[in-house]
Amino acid sequence: MTRSRQRTRRTHDRRAQPIPQLPWGQPRLRTPFVEILSEDEIASIHQTSLKILEEIGIVFNDDEAVEVFKNGGALVGDDGNVRIGRELVAEALRTAPGSFTLTPRDPEKVVEIGADALAFTTVLGPPYCSDIERGRRVGTLADFADFVRLGQYFNIIHMIAGSPVEPGDIEVDIRHIESTRTMLKLSDKVPYLFAQSRQRLWDGMELVARSLGYESREQLAERPRLYSIINTNSPLQYDGPMASGTIELARHNQLPVISPFSLAGATMPLPITGAVAMSNAEALAGIVLAQLVRPGAPVVTAAKTVNVDMKTGAPAFATPESNKAVQIGAQLARHNGLPFRAANFNNSNTVDAQCLYEAQGSLWAAVTSGTNLVMHAAGWLEGGLCSSFEKFILDVEILQMMKVWLDPVPVNDEVLSIDEIKFVGPGGHFFGTERTIAGYESAFYNPLITNTLNYKAWEAAGSRDATVRAHQIYKRAVDEYEAPKMPEAIARAVDQFADERIAVGGAPIT
Amino acid sequence: MTRSRQRTRRTHDRRAQPIPQLPWGQPRLRTPFVEILSEDEIASIHQTSLKILEEIGIVFNDDEAVEVFKNGGALVGDDGNVRIGRELVAEALRTAPGSFTLTPRDPEKVVEIGADALAFTTVLGPPYCSDIERGRRVGTLADFADFVRLGQYFNIIHMIAGSPVEPGDIEVDIRHIESTRTMLKLSDKVPYLFAQSRQRLWDGMELVARSLGYESREQLAERPRLYSIINTNSPLQYDGPMASGTIELARHNQLPVISPFSLAGATMPLPITGAVAMSNAEALAGIVLAQLVRPGAPVVTAAKTVNVDMKTGAPAFATPESNKAVQIGAQLARHNGLPFRAANFNNSNTVDAQCLYEAQGSLWAAVTSGTNLVMHAAGWLEGGLCSSFEKFILDVEILQMMKVWLDPVPVNDEVLSIDEIKFVGPGGHFFGTERTIAGYESAFYNPLITNTLNYKAWEAAGSRDATVRAHQIYKRAVDEYEAPKMPEAIARAVDQFADERIAVGGAPIT
Repeated sequence: MTRSRQRTRRTHDRRAQPIPQLPWGQPRLRTPFVEILSEDEIASIHQTSLKILEEIGIVFNDDEAVEVFKNGGALVGDDGNVRIGRELVAEALRTAPGSFTLTPRDPEKVVEIGADALAFTTVLGPPYCSDIERGRRVGTLADFADFVRLGQYFNIIHMIAGSPVEPGDIEVDIRHIESTRTMLKLSDKVPYLFAQSRQRLWDGMELVARSLGYESREQLAERPRLYSIINTNSPLQYDGPMASGTIELARHNQLPVISPFSLAGATMPLPITGAVAMSNAEALAGIVLAQLVRPGAPVVTAAKTVNVDMKTGAPAFATPESNKAVQIGAQLARHNGLPFRAANFNNSNTVDAQCLYEAQGSLWAAVTSGTNLVMHAAGWLEGGLCSSFEKFILDVEILQMMKVWLDPVPVNDEVLSIDEIKFVGPGGHFFGTERTIAGYESAFYNPLITNTLNYKAWEAAGSRDATVRAHQIYKRAVDEYEAPKMPEAIARAVDQFADERIAVGGAPIT
Repeated sequence: MTRSRQRTRRTHDRRAQPIPQLPWGQPRLRTPFVEILSEDEIASIHQTSLKILEEIGIVFNDDEAVEVFKNGGALVGDDGNVRIGRELVAEALRTAPGSFTLTPRDPEKVVEIGADALAFTTVLGPPYCSDIERGRRVGTLADFADFVRLGQYFNIIHMIAGSPVEPGDIEVDIRHIESTRTMLKLSDKVPYLFAQSRQRLWDGMELVARSLGYESREQLAERPRLYSIINTNSPLQYDGPMASGTIELARHNQLPVISPFSLAGATMPLPITGAVAMSNAEALAGIVLAQLVRPGAPVVTAAKTVNVDMKTGAPAFATPESNKAVQIGAQLARHNGLPFRAANFNNSNTVDAQCLYEAQGSLWAAVTSGTNLVMHAAGWLEGGLCSSFEKFILDVEILQMMKVWLDPVPVNDEVLSIDEIKFVGPGGHFFGTERTIAGYESAFYNPLITNTLNYKAWEAAGSRDATVRAHQIYKRAVDEYEAPKMPEAIARAVDQFADERIAVGGAPIT
């Protein structure tokens, strides 16, 4: 047999048994949610947020933002401090949609945000990446591409968060262009753009527009297509790129996920109730801005309140307190009729037991509190400083398990099985019943990583722990990955815009 | 300085900074619980259970149990098959308490079971144990003792599940005596006895009675003091030791935790709804038996339905389906006014990422569904075949985190912090505020294992993963452990009974 034939057969064999995974689809949240506070207590937190906006105000370091607020009826000081009255907030909450869709290049992969829908994104933003074969290193565009491939490959990932790792080998001024081009060619799921400056955001929007067959970014406004994180600069500040980003996203009818990144005891008050009140105030300011620019524009709120580890000054993610903040934040978001975001967090420096108890704890806190959008759902490590290929796969497993857990359970005479129980009777077994034989292949979640081998069999198979198994699945998924179809004319339009912008040197951050 | 002085100082230093842990106390469950089914659907599952008991019946392989049922009004066949009418079930549910307390030797460590109380036990029953220094091995009485020490040491463990590992070096006929004696001397928390035969259970009860200053097991009936797991032999059978155990526990006013161990697709029907209906029927049969023996006796129900991994035939714990079964089971238990048990499960053969995502997932499913008693809360590995010292410590961490997450959050002007936010203002920081300085040491959970060091600092400190750190805490805890006080007369009485029973050869299993 020739070598090429061997290869063909191997490829064929592999395709015959692809990696088991769930079909495309969003989980639906299960109610009632676990709620930490009474409706009165939630209302009093919201009242505190309103007071903060009215009496203290918030600084927007962007002239246009200040102008928008002034025209909208806010009290604007000389220093860019904006005091926002409660009637402005109420009006913004009236126009902001409780749910909406994001439609990517493949319209089959439309994502609903809000109501009972739940969506998961890849990790976003770490400068480092790691896998157990090559170790920890500064990310490159090749790594970026592999993470996008994984995000495209696994159906449980609904949205790409580009950069899933920063491509550190690409010069900063053109990095946004190269990375957006790569993301758009390798994935047809909902794309992400950074709000690093007006020009960089516009560049990204032009690329997304061209990938959709539009001629320019203005046409994006037809419907929500992409999303971006807006972080506040706590306490009570929006820096220039974030303020202008909020405006540009709203103007184009695209989604700002407004995520105050608050450190209780550092950038926010120590008691989480105070921190959430302030975080809510900061988020509401951005939501007002977006709604003033374009009433009805999509927005998502958050309450990403993490501790400061008082021993090291480092942020401590996935703590009991940050999980409580998620619960309170989700309740507040429901109180205000807004979709809510949380994240799959951990602090660990390696893919170990800590890494996964923190991830799973964050995920459960998010889902049982009614979170709509879980950022960093797959691949996050080291408190966000490193993207791990193995962690990505382990996260896919816990996300899939979560989706199956959320799937409805039918109750009817058929599944209640009394005839079958009668037939088997005391002391019998159900291995051979008609229903077991007919249903066993689909009855239970088919795991990706989880191993139920007994110890001896596991040892004989090489004593591979979950991280080693995840590494193998990561390699296989990148290998099995197929790029989504993109018409040549579209690809040319994307490349043409990208190449032109690169030729003129791209655009600096800020 | 002499060596002995050095040692003294080291001991002193260590005592000055004991392992950080939460004070003794039970978490309180947070409502509303996440509920998977409607009240009507729950009622129809319960109705199916009633039909199973009325129309199919359940086999009790114990003459006294059959006699008790016959006298109680059940329809008893020649083969030990007992058909239980719904009025008998209703009467048992009327007399079974919705909550009660278990009072151990140290009355300060009384545990509430039921209502909004949550209690955690050590792992129970594995034949093997492991730590990363000594590897995986058959458990010994020395290992058993170390697990009891850990269970006693950590306040988040409310009840000892003896055997936390089977002491394989002790001859079977006297193992129950040696292990119970060891448990009682090393811990004053709520003790556990196996229901392996009437005589062995009596032996254990006599030992517990003597540890409490009673002269014989009859005096235990004064109040609930100890607990035992009653597993059914599914489908629809109670073997002799479990039937007699239920009777003896109820007779002595002690707690049987009635836990059908059901494998959906093997010992129970494939659809989890059917499996839970049957599991509920089996549990109700034991509860009826207990209530017939002693109306008002404490009982706990369960719905420990796990999958069969259809590829290997092995049970698959902590799956999405078994987490759903826990949710349905807890709803059913509330419907019936009974305390509910679940467990902290995993399948992993090593303390890796899988081990902890399974553990954390099981724990969250249990707690958000309203579980009152989490068995195997610390130390379980390999689907219950191995007790791990490192896993024990990691579990203590996730249990402590869960307790802190469940702690109430105050909402008032003080914590809402508006004056402090005003004082700090936009662009300031909260590091130096009065409240931060006063509160930072107690504001956040102080972790046992969780590490927030940055990568370089973590690397410089030896790149120890969570399992390695857990090993170090386990060794330190065993070292810091102090045995609870036991009056000499009590110890003599315990020893005298144990030695006498050992001298006559103990008692065989069955």
